[in-house]
Parts: sequence; C-alpha cells; structure tokens
Amino acid sequence: MADFRSDTVTVADDRMREAMVTAEVGDDFYGEDPTVDDLERTAAQIVGKDAGVFLTNGTSANMVALLTLCSVADGRSGRQVLTHATSDIHAWEAHTLAQVAGLQTLPLPGRHGQLDPHALASALAATDPYAPRPAVVAIENTHSASGGRPWSLSDIDVVADLCDAAGVPLYCDGARLFNATVASGYGADEAVARCGAVSISLYKGLGAPMGSVLCGPAAFVEHARVLRRTLGSTFRQAGHLAAAGLVGLSRVAELADDHRRARDLWEGLAQVLPADLLDEPPTTNIVTLDIGADAGTLVDSLSAAGVRVTEVVPGVVRFVTHRDLTDADIDAALRAAAATFVPLQAGATR
Amino acid sequence: MADFRSDTVTVADDRMREAMVTAEVGDDFYGEDPTVDDLERTAAQIVGKDAGVFLTNGTSANMVALLTLCSVADGRSGRQVLTHATSDIHAWEAHTLAQVAGLQTLPLPGRHGQLDPHALASALAATDPYAPRPAVVAIENTHSASGGRPWSLSDIDVVADLCDAAGVPLYCDGARLFNATVASGYGADEAVARCGAVSISLYKGLGAPMGSVLCGPAAFVEHARVLRRTLGSTFRQAGHLAAAGLVGLSRVAELADDHRRARDLWEGLAQVLPADLLDEPPTTNIVTLDIGADAGTLVDSLSAAGVRVTEVVPGVVRFVTHRDLTDADIDAALRAAAATFVPLQAGATR
Amino acid sequence: MADFRSDTVTVADDRMREAMVTAEVGDDFYGEDPTVDDLERTAAQIVGKDAGVFLTNGTSANMVALLTLCSVADGRSGRQVLTHATSDIHAWEAHTLAQVAGLQTLPLPGRHGQLDPHALASALAATDPYAPRPAVVAIENTHSASGGRPWSLSDIDVVADLCDAAGVPLYCDGARLFNATVASGYGADEAVARCGAVSISLYKGLGAPMGSVLCGPAAFVEHARVLRRTLGSTFRQAGHLAAAGLVGLSRVAELADDHRRARDLWEGLAQVLPADLLDEPPTTNIVTLDIGADAGTLVDSLSAAGVRVTEVVPGVVRFVTHRDLTDADIDAALRAAAATFVPLQAGATR
Amino acid sequence: MADFRSDTVTVADDRMREAMVTAEVGDDFYGEDPTVDDLERTAAQIVGKDAGVFLTNGTSANMVALLTLCSVADGRSGRQVLTHATSDIHAWEAHTLAQVAGLQTLPLPGRHGQLDPHALASALAATDPYAPRPAVVAIENTHSASGGRPWSLSDIDVVADLCDAAGVPLYCDGARLFNATVASGYGADEAVARCGAVSISLYKGLGAPMGSVLCGPAAFVEHARVLRRTLGSTFRQAGHLAAAGLVGLSRVAELADDHRRARDLWEGLAQVLPADLLDEPPTTNIVTLDIGADAGTLVDSLSAAGVRVTEVVPGVVRFVTHRDLTDADIDAALRAAAATFVPLQAGATR
Repeated sequence: MADFRSDTVTVADDRMREAMVTAEVGDDFYGEDPTVDDLERTAAQIVGKDAGVFLTNGTSANMVALLTLCSVADGRSGRQVLTHATSDIHAWEAHTLAQVAGLQTLPLPGRHGQLDPHALASALAATDPYAPRPAVVAIENTHSASGGRPWSLSDIDVVADLCDAAGVPLYCDGARLFNATVASGYGADEAVARCGAVSISLYKGLGAPMGSVLCGPAAFVEHARVLRRTLGSTFRQAGHLAAAGLVGLSRVAELADDHRRARDLWEGLAQVLPADLLDEPPTTNIVTLDIGADAGTLVDSLSAAGVRVTEVVPGVVRFVTHRDLTDADIDAALRAAAATFVPLQAGATR
Repeated sequence: MADFRSDTVTVADDRMREAMVTAEVGDDFYGEDPTVDDLERTAAQIVGKDAGVFLTNGTSANMVALLTLCSVADGRSGRQVLTHATSDIHAWEAHTLAQVAGLQTLPLPGRHGQLDPHALASALAATDPYAPRPAVVAIENTHSASGGRPWSLSDIDVVADLCDAAGVPLYCDGARLFNATVASGYGADEAVARCGAVSISLYKGLGAPMGSVLCGPAAFVEHARVLRRTLGSTFRQAGHLAAAGLVGLSRVAELADDHRRARDLWEGLAQVLPADLLDEPPTTNIVTLDIGADAGTLVDSLSAAGVRVTEVVPGVVRFVTHRDLTDADIDAALRAAAATFVPLQAGATR
Repeated sequence: MADFRSDTVTVADDRMREAMVTAEVGDDFYGEDPTVDDLERTAAQIVGKDAGVFLTNGTSANMVALLTLCSVADGRSGRQVLTHATSDIHAWEAHTLAQVAGLQTLPLPGRHGQLDPHALASALAATDPYAPRPAVVAIENTHSASGGRPWSLSDIDVVADLCDAAGVPLYCDGARLFNATVASGYGADEAVARCGAVSISLYKGLGAPMGSVLCGPAAFVEHARVLRRTLGSTFRQAGHLAAAGLVGLSRVAELADDHRRARDLWEGLAQVLPADLLDEPPTTNIVTLDIGADAGTLVDSLSAAGVRVTEVVPGVVRFVTHRDLTDADIDAALRAAAATFVPLQAGATR
Repeated sequence: MADFRSDTVTVADDRMREAMVTAEVGDDFYGEDPTVDDLERTAAQIVGKDAGVFLTNGTSANMVALLTLCSVADGRSGRQVLTHATSDIHAWEAHTLAQVAGLQTLPLPGRHGQLDPHALASALAATDPYAPRPAVVAIENTHSASGGRPWSLSDIDVVADLCDAAGVPLYCDGARLFNATVASGYGADEAVARCGAVSISLYKGLGAPMGSVLCGPAAFVEHARVLRRTLGSTFRQAGHLAAAGLVGLSRVAELADDHRRARDLWEGLAQVLPADLLDEPPTTNIVTLDIGADAGTLVDSLSAAGVRVTEVVPGVVRFVTHRDLTDADIDAALRAAAATFVPLQAGATR
C-alpha cells in the first residue's frame, strides 16, 4: 500500500533505529537522561528559544503550552484560545482543552488558515472580566487544513502586533514548522521570533516514532514541566525516543523531497481532475481535493487500488506526502486517481 | 432616568414586596421551604415538565442544565454545546462552561439567532470519539441578540428532528420564553415540548429580584439539585424570593405592554433614523440599532438626556423595554434620540 | 416542634422582614444595589478588611475564597487545602472543591478542631513541584464539629506563623465567627487579623434568610467577584436579602442568649446522661452527644416528642441553639431526653 | 554508583534494545501498531482481563483508570478515591487527580498499607448526594511505602467484599504487582480477580524504558482509550517501546533475584543498625529505614561512598533493589552503611 493518509505513518529507518538502540539513557523523571537533554537543547536552539521540554505528542504540547501561557486563575486573564476555525487545535483538540484545561477555543475566520486581522482584533477587544475573554492566540504553521500552507513572516507580524497591543501571548503550533521553513526559506527562529512559545513535532515529516518538543523562555518551560507531570506525561528512559528525534531534526532539509512529490502529485491530478476540485498548487506536503458527496467513493476506490488517503473532513480528500513514499507511489496514486475519476466524472455528468 | 439597558433592572413593586414579606419560608437546604416548592411546581407546570429547581440566575441554570444533559464522563458523549454564535451562552457565558463544567461552546451560524440546519447537521455528524463531539444543542427563545426574536414552533421542530436523529439532547435557554409565548401565541409547554430541559428567568420581564427555574424530567431535576449543591448555589429561606417569582409568573400577560412599547419605540425611531440602521420591527421587547462607529457617542448623548441604553456589542445600541418603563419614557427616549441623531447624521453626511 | 437541627433553620422575624420589604435596591450585576454595597462595606469593616463580596452561602464563599487565594495555574503553587479532618470544608464540601475548583483537601488531625502544629508543619513542608503541595490553609472558627469551639488568638498565631514561614495564605471559614467573638471576647477583626481572607454567614446564628460575605484585601475581592460570576452566582436586586443581613449583623450581641441556652441544655443533659456521653460544657451554641449505636433511636424518640436534632456524623447527636428557640424549648428538649434516656440506658445496662 | 533510589532507574539491556530496534511498528493512533497490540493482549491475558491499553506511566494509568471507573457526571456517584494515606495515589498523585480529573483522594489508615476495614466501611457508608461520597477504592499491590509489602488474597477479599456491598468499584494500582505475585505465589489473575481494573508498570522491576498497561473489561478499556486521547497521551509508532515491555513481561520470574538481594541487604543492615530502625524483613524489593533527623546525613554519606538512596519521606531512607544491581552493589551498600552508621550512632548516643 502507498499510504498518503498522514505523514505520521512513517516507520523508523535503519539509521533511526540504530540511534535508538545505541542511545545513552537515564531516568528522565529525575532529569537524568542525557539524550533527552540533548534533544531539548537542540530543538530550543533551532527555534531560537531558551529551553525545551519533550512531550508525548502535539496535542499534549498544545495543551501544556496554552495552559501555561494563560494565567487562568488570576482573574485578570480569560480562558479563550483564539485560533482558526480549521486549525487542528479547534477542529481536533478543542475537547481536550475544555475537559482537561478548562479552556475554550474561539474559532476565527480567515483565508487559507490565516487569522483574519479584523476578526482577531475584534476578539482581542473583549476585555469584560464577567464575559468570555481571550487568553492566548494560536497560529498553526504550516496550516494543515489549508493544504499545509505556510505563514509569511509579514502575516505573522500582523497577528503578533495585534497580540502585543492587547497584551495577549501568541503561540505557534509548529507541528509542521519545518515544512514551512523549507518551503518559505525563513529560519525556524525567525518564524517564531514573535511567538511566546512554539511546539514542533518529531513524528510528522521528520519520521520519528513519537514525541514533540515545546520550546520557550526558561520560566515557561519550567512551568510546562510541572504541567507535564500533572497530566501524567513524564517519561523514564526516553532517550531512545529522543535519539530518534535527533535524527529527525538532522533531516529537515529532506522535507524538500516531500514537497516536490506533493507538487508532482498535484500536477498529475490536474491532468485528470476538473479544475474546480483542485486548490492552488501545494507549497509543502499536503494536497487536498474538494470532492463533495463522492469523497467516500473515491477513498474506497483508491484503497482498492492500493492507495490510502483520508476524507479529512466531509467531502475533502487529503493526500500527504512523507519520507516513506517514493516517486513510484506518486505514480501509483495518479494511476489510481485517473482510473477512479473517469467513471466518477462520467456518473456526475450523466 | 429612563433605563432601557436591560429588563433586569426592574425593582419589585408593592405587591411583589408584600408577597416577599409575608412568604411562608423554611430551610430549603433541607427541602422545607413551602414557597420554593410552590414556585418550582408552578414553573414546571407552566412549561409542561415534571419538576423544577430554583437557581440563582440564568447563567447558573444554563450551566447546571448543560452539565446535567450531557453525561460527560461516560466516554460516549462529547463536550461541545452547539449554540448560536450570538447566543448568550456563547457570547456571555462560554468561559463559565469551560472553567467550571469542562464544556466547549461551538458557535453556529444562522439568521436571526436560528441555528442554520445545514451547519447544525454538520456539527451533529461529528462522532469520532477522539475528536470534539456534540454533547447538547441549545437554543435561546427569544433570541436576545437578534432583537428578542421568538422561535417558531416549526423552526424548533427542524432543530429537534436533527437532535433526535443524532441522539443529542436539546435545551432551551428560556430566559425570555414568556416574551416568545406572548408574542407568538403558542403555549410555554408547546414551545419546549421538544426540549429535554428548559430554564426560565424570573428577573427579566417578570420583574422579580432574582432567580431562575430549571425544569425537566424528574431524574434530570434530581441530578440538577446535586449539581446546584456542588456549585455552591443552594439556598436557605429562599421562599421570600420565590414569592416574588410567583408574582412574576402571574404577570406573564403584562409582557404584551412591553412589546407594544418596543414597537412604539421602533416606529418613533423609524421617523428619525436612516432606514438601514433599523432592523425589522420588534415582536417582543428589544430594539437594536446597528449604529457603527458612532454607537458610543449615541449612548453618551442619550445618557445625558436621561435615557440609558447599552452598546451591547461594538457598534450596536440596544433598547430593552420592561415593566418599570412608561409611555412617557418611550417619548423621552424618542426625543433624546431625535436630538442626538440630527447632529450625528449631519456629521456623517458632511 | 423545637428545631435544634441547625442554626440555619431560623425564620426572619418582623423587623428583618420589614427591612427586606423597604430595602432600596438596584441591579447588583451592574454594581448598582445600594443595600448590597452597604452590607459589603459593613461586613468588611466589622472584620477589619478592605472590602467584601456578597455570596450565596458558605460553600460558595469557601470555594471562591480558596480558589482566589491559591494561584493554581502558575506552577509555583500547589492545589491542596490543608484543613482539619472534621472541618466543614473537608467533611461536607471537599467534592465541590475537586469538581469545580480542581483543589484537594488534605485532612489534618488536631484536638477540638485545632490543626495539630506538627502535622501542619509537615504538610507545609511539601514543596516538590511534581508532588501534591499546599495551596492554602483553612481554619474554622468556631469549629462546628467539636461542639462549636472557638479558636484562641494564640492558637491562631501558631498556625499563622507556620503559614507565614511557608508562604502559604491562611483563610478563616467564619460561618460562626461571631459565636467565637461573643464567647471569647476578642474582636472579629482581631480574630482574622492573621488571615488573608475570611467569610461570615448571615443565615446561621444571625438569622437572615441567606447569604455570606467574603472579605479580604481589595484585589482579592475584585478577583472573587469575577469568580462569583464564573460560578453563576451573581445577583440582581439582592438588596432585599442584604437588608436582612444588615439586621443580622446588628444583632451579634444576641448570640450570647444562644450560648446561655446551650449551656443550660448541657447542664440539664448532664443530670440525665452518663458522664462519658457528654463532651466538655459548650462555650457557644452547639452541644454534641457521642451516643454510638443508639444515636438513631435517640433522634427518633426526640422527634416523636417534638424535638428535632440530627445525627450529624454516625453515632453523634447534635443540638444547635439559635434565635428561634426559647427557654421553653430547652425544657422540652430536656424532658424528651430524660424520657428517652431512661429506657435506652436500661436497655444498655441489661 | 550503585543506584538504589528506585527500580525505575534501570537501563535497557542488549536483549531489550534488540527487541526495540527490530520491532514491527505502525501508527498506533490509527490502532495499527502490531507490537503495541501484542503487548496489550499479553498484559491483559496475564492479569486475566479482557483487554489492555498502553499508557505512558503509572500516574497516567491511575488517572485514566480512576476517572473511567467512576461515572462522575451522573450525579449518583461521588468523586472521592478511597485509598491508603501512604499510597502513591494519595502521597504523590493527588494533585493530578484534582486538577485534571476533578477527583479527591480520601486518605485511609491501615497497617502496612492495608486499608483498615472499619475505616473503609465508614467511608463507604457516605452516600449523602450533597456531601463528599466515594467513587472508587484503590489498593496498591505491592504497597510501596510499607516496604513493598504484598497484599494477601484474603485481605483483598475483605476490601472487595466491602466494595461490592457498597456498589463501589475496586482498582488495583499494580505498578509492582509482579513483585507481589513472585513473593506471594499467587497468580496475577488471582491477585486482581476482585478488581474492576488493574494497571501494571513495565518500567519498574521489569526494566523497560517506559510504559504501563491498564487492563479491564472491554468497555472499560474502550473508554480508557478515549480518555488517553483527551489527556494528550496517544502514541504513534510505540511498538519500539512495547517490544521492550514484552521483554520485561517475559522476565517476571527474575524479580526473585531482586527480592533475594533486598533480603540480603536487610540482613546485612541488621548487623550494623539498631533494631528499632529496621522494619520487618522485606518480602519483595524495598528496604526502608526509619532514621529520623539524621536521614539526610545518611543519604549524603552513602552518596559520597557511591551508593545512591532516597529520603523517600522525611526521616525515612529507602533502598530499592532492581535488575541493574548486583551482589557486589549490595556489599558496597552494606560497607557504606556500616561506615556511616558507626559515627552517626556514636553521635546519637553521646
């Protein structure tokens, strides 16, 4: 099977496994795992922050970050996380924030996952202490639901200026931050310079088995460590996993291959699909097709042909490229898509 | 001052005070206040439910109701409250639900406070146990932010049918339910027949000093009583307040006077205001003007002329009629509005 | 019936009802109820604090106070409320703190409701940020479960010194604080001078229908007002209730009558009961009998004779005196007790 | 250094690393990691339950288990976790339960970590829906704080009978369950037959880098998986870790070596220590010394001699044996202890 469902499905290769098996480890609950320390330092350095903390996954990193950034108990801060209506935080994790952290997500509109500045300014203006108020603003870079679109530095500046004016911290969900840096040419540190904290994922494009790193100022990370413990997410000899993460961090440049393959896929699909089903060409590793009612049929047909994709939201089919896919997989996907679309289209136009 | 800020500002009149002072009371923590019992029974009967529980206010009633309706701990239910983007529950109380009850509000679109059926159906279709899922749907009747517009029974049926199909309970925030029944001609029991629970307010149009009653099936109310205790909202000799509430319930028909005065106000404003600032004529007791940037100036000018109104959301000025306002107050408001609008308009058209 | 179950069962007398009916009121949600303002100022002045906030009851006051006193989200503070194992906060309200506020009670030992200094010091020494840590210490004055025993100022100093040394705030649950001041001769302000905040009840010995006032520094009270809103406990025209509370506050000296009657009751019981069933003579308004297995029988027998008491914890029967009880009620209770004890004792000694 | 601080400090050996590096893995978020599946099935089979779910650690397993076992939102159940005052759940994790799950721990007395039946029965009798009530009972087998003492099956039966009578579920924190089975001779399935759910640790005596497995009925585990997601604790290619866990589970019998060494250590210490400092001989892998004020000095002196131990609670020094310690380490610990105790004792007796 050629698995385009997500870039999370990658399996560690020999080099990564070798790093895992030879890792020097210790009891990280006591702060004694040297490889975890190395990973946390390396990640923090890459994104230009003081420190980092190793967490289970992006959901955990988002929750710890958002809860740390807003001083929810002091009565001066609100409990709303302002984020895009199609962000992963709102669409996939809002329930975790309410149940575990007592935070609300307030979904904001905006083209391609960018927060509409007018809507953001309006939401930030809510300061009545008796009513819902903003606690933190979150952006997602790249923005998954809009085809993995990177934020431009100037768009980040617009949001950050509004945050600064309102005294509300800005957080970057950087699960695919390195897709953004590779595609846009800016540095990871530049991308998050205006953000109070940032999380990166090791198990998406970078191919590690698991883990995210949440980075920020030293006091922020110290607090995040306490929350990690409170949420039951401390590790013991996690250096094995951290070693895999370090290998992943050494491979950021290879994400360009995923981007090229996504572009190849899009161009191939453009040959066989009606133009209105295709979004703009991808700049990173995600291709989405707005299929509509036939989406499920398409997913099933592709699957029967050995190509796995997801109907990520109703009507929308998503292909994600990653390091375990080859050019041959792209070809297979295109062949399967062509074979599927012809009958679908014929049916649609009948 | 003629106070049009809200129908919550009413002061108990002599008859209501007499009822308070002569009330037979007992310790309601032990379930021994006969006037509280009378209020709870009376309210339940009016709305056609098994039982009722006396609560401090509408926020408390909404929180207890929503938390009771969704079995949040059983893993089969979600934690999202699907409600209109301009509902009081989302706009004014979302933070209380997150912080206290661990529930998210998911704001839905819809004209005049009605839930758009397509958007509602889409939100109800979210059943992935690992992602945000609906726990309960809430409607607000009348819907305050759309000028106190009542729901029609057929529109409630559309929503209720979708809820039934999804197995998600429907709740009615009936803070101004009696404004809806008086304006629409349907019974309170008919209005909430499709709702698993309903709360009514005693301190809005009905003029009591405080208190809401949350009504529903017996087991629901029993659970709500436990939650009332958990939230620190039990009462002792609350019969004094319940007596005022009973007087309020006996005066539902008098809400027609508030509606007539709101209509008079709207018609008077239509004489002096540009047509595009006015929404459709009110059917209940709320008149809203979409003033825009000058809204603050208008509020201040009216206030200087002895007429208090609120800029309820940025740019929107709201007048609410209630039993403590007279025809003379309407005239005063119209005079002040005319005196204010001429210079404002002159400025705007310069 | 002579109702000795609790001092919460009192019914407002004519003077209190007159105050309620003539109260000048306003919409307290907007901060416009002059009688509520008067009550909050008066209560704060009596206990020597900057400000006060009117709350529904003691449970609400305790929850708001404890959550405000500990900055739970900042990672530097714990979430444990150190309090006596028989305090109302632990024994009757612990579940509210966990569910609503995310706080744990840590029950401490100590004679007569006093916190054992060694146990307290040990609990305060827990500062590992990864383990349970103290957030606040709470004392109850008088301590209900130990027969309404007042704290001495020197015992409060011992606890306060430990709190100061640990940097942990001290809170006084003063539901019956005025019983302590009347019995001990110290001022209410002296009693809570070492406490960061204090709540008093208006509906226990003072006889008002409902309400507590939580007092402390201005910033604390401002925060508490926000939390009151979050918990759904704001009021509207609450001046009616506040007026009753003000009458209650004017009657503090009359608590001496309750204390005298409790002493009369104890002395009368000492004539008919075995010495080991009686605790030391009461200094305030609570008499407890450690009956054991026959407690339920005693409660029932007294009830049949028109005297209502409670088995407050298994085996322990409690009499509480209050302003609605007369000397004749004490006599009735003693007659009923004597008539009940003779057969009970005869049975026990057979 | 000979590290006796905890059995969590072990480092994966070659065989375990080989298993990690060769593991067949998949994306466990999609339920596609065969090695995780194997681990969950294997663990469930060993403890005689339907199913298992792989979790980060024991704290996470306890939190998920306790929150799943009590239907906290239904109003019929309480929120108190009845557990021993020295259990890990109360002493080390109570704050996580309050903050994240809204649950209180109620610490119970009892010799050697056994729950005193009278105290347990009394706590289980609390059924007032307005007061704190039991939600679940938790036992810890072996009980760490009492020197790793195993529960006898008959003692478990006593507790389980009380739980059954009260309709309250029983949970076993089995972080060191296999130490109990090896020492006591009963099967793991027998040990937890009366428990609704059980968690086991892979990273304590079994020596894996991390992970616990929570086992119970199928519906319980299904719910626990949802909560795992809510808490941000899902994994991706966790088969690497699961493979290590499977190796750990194959080595249960080797725990007997740890037990023998703990016994050797105790016997050696008995030669040099005053009898009153030593508890009864260990039956599993923990030796605790009740040193008192000199505990810190002892820890430091041992550390200077290359032997690491912890002052696990004030005054108590703990040695834990594990698979990374040898007979030579025991000898080193005894030599260091002897060298330390002679001057300490001389000082103490001066």
